[in-house]
Amino acid sequence: MPNHQGSLDRVFHALADPSRRDIVQRLVRGPASVSELARPLEMSLPAVLQHLQVLESSGLVVSEKVGRVRTCRIESAVLRAAEGWLSAQRTDWERRLDRLDDVVAGHATEELTTGGEDRR
Amino acid sequence: MPNHQGSLDRVFHALADPSRRDIVQRLVRGPASVSELARPLEMSLPAVLQHLQVLESSGLVVSEKVGRVRTCRIESAVLRAAEGWLSAQRTDWERRLDRLDDVVAGHATEELTTGGEDRR
Repeated sequence: MPNHQGSLDRVFHALADPSRRDIVQRLVRGPASVSELARPLEMSLPAVLQHLQVLESSGLVVSEKVGRVRTCRIESAVLRAAEGWLSAQRTDWERRLDRLDDVVAGHATEELTTGGEDRR
Repeated sequence: MPNHQGSLDRVFHALADPSRRDIVQRLVRGPASVSELARPLEMSLPAVLQHLQVLESSGLVVSEKVGRVRTCRIESAVLRAAEGWLSAQRTDWERRLDRLDDVVAGHATEELTTGGEDRR
């Protein structure tokens, strides 16, 4: 699970390619062999293996070879770590908007009070 | 807002660098000038501008120059789109786990029932 900068670098780099995202989207529905992953991708097996290598080095995918078949599966904790970083940014952003709302509401109340005093 | 593959490519590529993530983390707390962004990064201004260019081409950051000051701000919709893609994967993953749970529970019930019949 990526808990430091280098891991997030590799995870986001791995996700920056449509074929690698296709592989992730396939694997969240369950483990698959390399040839099952290659079938819908319309690319050579070496190209698929290269993408899998990038995904494995990021930790997003793990694979195991039993006999002649290599089966790949998603490492959901790594996916969650990347989502966690993004959702932390969104939370900070929303907090900032809330504070701005409070400031605006504060000003409005102040103006109403001052206005009321003026009219007395 | 990235609604196609190419945009997500650029967004995840932009996030695959620790300095660019630092810039994003700074900007979710509010807009900042280029020199404000550069200060904590310990790198040359041209290097910072290069990172900002990557962030702007991904749509994550927009900037505006007023007089001699260029102010940058985050485009929260783009951040949300990247988070959305990841959370959709997590949802699919969790759905799969739920289905597996159902299958296991189904088998357990079946075994209990069969066991009951056997004992009659």
